[in-house]
Amino acid sequence: MPKSKKAKESLTVMTEMVFPNDTNTLGNLMGGNLMRSMDIAGAIAAQKHCNRIVVTASVDNVTFKESIPLGSVVTLEAKVTRAFNSSMEVLVDVWAENIPAGTKIHTNKAFLTFVAVDQTGRPIEVPAVEAETPEEMEHYNGALRRRQLRLILGGRMKPDEATELKELFI
Amino acid sequence: MPKSKKAKESLTVMTEMVFPNDTNTLGNLMGGNLMRSMDIAGAIAAQKHCNRIVVTASVDNVTFKESIPLGSVVTLEAKVTRAFNSSMEVLVDVWAENIPAGTKIHTNKAFLTFVAVDQTGRPIEVPAVEAETPEEMEHYNGALRRRQLRLILGGRMKPDEATELKELFI
Amino acid sequence: MPKSKKAKESLTVMTEMVFPNDTNTLGNLMGGNLMRSMDIAGAIAAQKHCNRIVVTASVDNVTFKESIPLGSVVTLEAKVTRAFNSSMEVLVDVWAENIPAGTKIHTNKAFLTFVAVDQTGRPIEVPAVEAETPEEMEHYNGALRRRQLRLILGGRMKPDEATELKELFI
Amino acid sequence: MPKSKKAKESLTVMTEMVFPNDTNTLGNLMGGNLMRSMDIAGAIAAQKHCNRIVVTASVDNVTFKESIPLGSVVTLEAKVTRAFNSSMEVLVDVWAENIPAGTKIHTNKAFLTFVAVDQTGRPIEVPAVEAETPEEMEHYNGALRRRQLRLILGGRMKPDEATELKELFI
Amino acid sequence: MPKSKKAKESLTVMTEMVFPNDTNTLGNLMGGNLMRSMDIAGAIAAQKHCNRIVVTASVDNVTFKESIPLGSVVTLEAKVTRAFNSSMEVLVDVWAENIPAGTKIHTNKAFLTFVAVDQTGRPIEVPAVEAETPEEMEHYNGALRRRQLRLILGGRMKPDEATELKELFI
Amino acid sequence: MPKSKKAKESLTVMTEMVFPNDTNTLGNLMGGNLMRSMDIAGAIAAQKHCNRIVVTASVDNVTFKESIPLGSVVTLEAKVTRAFNSSMEVLVDVWAENIPAGTKIHTNKAFLTFVAVDQTGRPIEVPAVEAETPEEMEHYNGALRRRQLRLILGGRMKPDEATELKELFI
Repeated sequence: MPKSKKAKESLTVMTEMVFPNDTNTLGNLMGGNLMRSMDIAGAIAAQKHCNRIVVTASVDNVTFKESIPLGSVVTLEAKVTRAFNSSMEVLVDVWAENIPAGTKIHTNKAFLTFVAVDQTGRPIEVPAVEAETPEEMEHYNGALRRRQLRLILGGRMKPDEATELKELFI
Repeated sequence: MPKSKKAKESLTVMTEMVFPNDTNTLGNLMGGNLMRSMDIAGAIAAQKHCNRIVVTASVDNVTFKESIPLGSVVTLEAKVTRAFNSSMEVLVDVWAENIPAGTKIHTNKAFLTFVAVDQTGRPIEVPAVEAETPEEMEHYNGALRRRQLRLILGGRMKPDEATELKELFI
Repeated sequence: MPKSKKAKESLTVMTEMVFPNDTNTLGNLMGGNLMRSMDIAGAIAAQKHCNRIVVTASVDNVTFKESIPLGSVVTLEAKVTRAFNSSMEVLVDVWAENIPAGTKIHTNKAFLTFVAVDQTGRPIEVPAVEAETPEEMEHYNGALRRRQLRLILGGRMKPDEATELKELFI
Repeated sequence: MPKSKKAKESLTVMTEMVFPNDTNTLGNLMGGNLMRSMDIAGAIAAQKHCNRIVVTASVDNVTFKESIPLGSVVTLEAKVTRAFNSSMEVLVDVWAENIPAGTKIHTNKAFLTFVAVDQTGRPIEVPAVEAETPEEMEHYNGALRRRQLRLILGGRMKPDEATELKELFI
Repeated sequence: MPKSKKAKESLTVMTEMVFPNDTNTLGNLMGGNLMRSMDIAGAIAAQKHCNRIVVTASVDNVTFKESIPLGSVVTLEAKVTRAFNSSMEVLVDVWAENIPAGTKIHTNKAFLTFVAVDQTGRPIEVPAVEAETPEEMEHYNGALRRRQLRLILGGRMKPDEATELKELFI
Repeated sequence: MPKSKKAKESLTVMTEMVFPNDTNTLGNLMGGNLMRSMDIAGAIAAQKHCNRIVVTASVDNVTFKESIPLGSVVTLEAKVTRAFNSSMEVLVDVWAENIPAGTKIHTNKAFLTFVAVDQTGRPIEVPAVEAETPEEMEHYNGALRRRQLRLILGGRMKPDEATELKELFI
C-alpha cells in the first residue's frame, strides 16, 4: 500500500434522476434519499483512496436549503479530504439540474467519514492524502477542526480539549 | 391550531427488518439506508406535532458506532424536542435487536429539523412544544445550543454570536 | 427457553408512509403491499415471543374496507395471541392516518400464524402465551376456533370434527 | 358492457424469479412478498373480466406449506370464478419451480375478491362469469359458500344465516 | 440431458403492471425498465430449455415505437429459437394492454442470447431446439444470420466472412 | 435553441455499486439491470444536448462478455455522437471496478437513440452535434451506417438501399 495518494485520485461522480418514489408529498426529493446517495458516493471515493472495504463512521451536519423536484438530474461529487490512521474524511457536493429549464444549482455539501476495514471488520491503516489545489488544501486544513467537533458531539472529547475548534469561539 | 402541544403526542415508533439490499459488502446495514429511515421517522413525528406537510431542513451529525447485521430488527423512536416559528427539532433514537441472540443495543441518535409548509411550499408557524419529563426538558433546553451550532455550520451565524454555544468552550 | 411469556412482550409497532410506488391507479395503497407489511410486522412479533427464526405458515382472511391514499401514515400493531407447539398466532391491527386532515381510522385486522424453526428449517417448540388483559384473553380463547377453521380450509380437518367452530353454526 | 364473459378470458399468467431481497433469513421467499404478487395477478385477471379499474376487497385464508428458495421461478395463474354485482372472486394458484433440479410443485392457492370502481372510486356492476370446464363450475358453485364465510368473518353476516356454509357443519 | 427439446417447452409468459417508479417524465414506461423485464423473461425461457443456470450473453437491437402509459398491463412471451453449443437464442415479444380502454398492441420484439453455465461459471453444452410450427422454423432459420450479425457487431467476425448475412446486401 | 452543440457538453458520468438485488444466481450483475442503468445514463446525456424531455427510441446490440460481481463499482459514461432531426445517438461505455483487487475493465459499449419530445410527446428538432476529438469524429462518421442498420432491423429500410452499410459487405 502506498504511503500517500493524491486527493483527486478518489474523485467519484454520480449522476441520478429523481424518480416518483424518491419524492415527498410536494413532489420533491426526500432528504433521506439524498443522504442515502451521498453515503454511497462517499463510500466509493473512500474505497478508491484506500483500496479496501469501508464502513460509514459518521455524517456531519447536512442542510437542505433547496427543493429538488421530480425529474431533476442530481450530480454528486465525492473526494477524500484527509486521512487519520484508518479513517478518511470525504467531502460530498450535490448539484441539482432542471435540464429543460437550463438551471443547475449547488444544493448540498457534507463531510462524511469512513473507516477502512478487513474482511472481519477490523480497522486497517490507510494512505495519507496529498492535497494539491488551494481548495483541497483548505479542506485538508479544516479536517482537524471538524474532527474535534465530531469527537465532542459523539461524547468522546471534552470541549475545552478541542484546541483547534476553540479558537473559533474566542 | 393549538398554541402548544405535548412532546409525547408526536412519539413515532418504526420497526424494520434489515433486508439483503440494505447491506454492504460485510453484510451490515449501510449508513445511508439507516439515515433514510431516520428521515422518514422524524418527518412523521414532525407531521404529528404540527398537522402539516413537513420538509427536511437539516440532519445533525450522526455517528455509526455499531454494525447492524442482516436480519436484525431495527427500532426507531422519534419525538419533537422544541419548535422555533415554523421549524421543529426532532430527536430520533435507533436500537438494533438480534432477536435469536436476545441482544438489543442503542446504536444511533440524531437531531433532525423539519419545516412545516403549505401546499405551495411556504413555511407556516407551528405549535410550541411542552416538555414534561426530565429527559424532554433536557432536550428542550439543549435545542437552542444545537440550533446555534447548525446556523454556524450552515454559514448563517458567526461563532462569536453563538452565546449559548460559546459557554461550552470557555 | 421460558415455559411461557406475556403476550405484551411481543408487541411490535411499525409506522410507514405510503409512497407513490405502493399505490394503484386511484392513488391508494395496494392491498398486496399492505399484506407484505402485515407479514413483516407479524414475523417480528412472533420472533420476539420465541427468540427464534420464524416462517409464515398462514394468513387468515383479510378485508379491505377503507382506501388509504398516497401520503398517509400507516401504523401496524402486532402481538401474539396464543401458541400451539411450534406455531404462534399473531394479531395484526392496521390504522391509517391522514395527519394534515387530523383523521385516523382502523382499516384492517388479520390473524397470521408463524412457525418457529431452527437453522435447517425444522419446527421448534415455543413458549406458551400468557394473556393478561380482557382483550388478550378474548383473543386467546378465540384462537382454537380460528385454528380449526384454518385446518378445515387447508383441507387438514373435516368440518364435523371442528367442535369449537361447529357451535357457531348450530 | 357484455352481460357475461367466459372465465377463461380473464386468465392471467405471471412468472417471477425470487431475488435476494424477497427472501427471509433462511433464504426462502417471504410470505408477504408472495401475497403482494398474488394481489397483482388477481387484480389483472379481475380487470380483464370487467375492463374497469379494480380495488382489492378481501383475501381469503392463504397457507404456506412449502418453502420457495432464492433463484426459484414462481408462476402465478389467476382466473375469475364468479361475479356478484360489482365484486369478482378470483382464484390464484402458485407453482414454484427449481429449474436446474427439474422440480415444480404447487405451493399456494387463494381466493381474492376485487370490486370494479369508476374514477371516483364508486362500485360499478360487472359481467356475470360463464364457467365452462368442470373445474370452473366447481369453483363457481363454491363461490357462494366462500362468500358467506367472508361475510361472517368480516362481521357482516350472522353464522346461522349462512345457509350454504351451515350445511358443511351439520 | 436430452439431445434436443421442443421450442414450445421453453415458453415463458410474464405479466406486469406499470407502476409509478417505472415511468419517465411523461408518465410512460422507461425503455430500460422494459429491457430489464425482457432479460428476466428470456433468462427463464433459456433455463427451461437447458435446465441450467444461464447468463445473458447479448441483447440484439430493440426498438421502442409505442409509449406504454402508467397502469398498463405488459405481457412478455419468451421462447428459445435455436441453440449453438452452449448458447441459446431467445425471442421475447412484448404486448401492452390498456384494459379499461380495451386496447392491446404489440410494442416490442427482441432476440437475446444466453449461455448455460455450471456453478463455477463455465459454459456447458445445451440440447438442440426442435422447431415445429412455421413461425418457429422461420425463427430457427434466421438465427444463423442474426448470429453472424452479432459476431460482426461484437468485433469477432469480419463482414465478408458472414456468408448468410451477406446475401441480404447483394 | 443553438444550431449546434459540442459533443462533450453532453458528457454524463454515472457511478453505481452492485447491490444484492441486482445480481443473478452466480452473484453477478444481471444484464437487464445494467441495460436499465445504460438507458438512464444515455437519456441524461441526450437531455443535456437538447434541453428537452427525451424518450428512448432504440438500443443497439449489447454484448456481455465480462461478469460483474456483487460489490463492484460500475462507471457509465454517456455522450451524444450525432443528431438527426429530432433524434440523437448516444454512446454509453461501461467499466467495472473491483476496488479492493485494484482492477478496472471495460465491460460494455452500446449505442442508444433518443428522441426529443414536447410535453404532449411530439418530436422536436434538436441541435447538431459538433465532434471535436478524433474519437468523437469517428463516432460521428459511423453514426449514419449504424442508423441504416437500425432502420433495416426495424423493418423500415430495405438492405439494398443502405448504401453506407452495404460497403462493409462487398
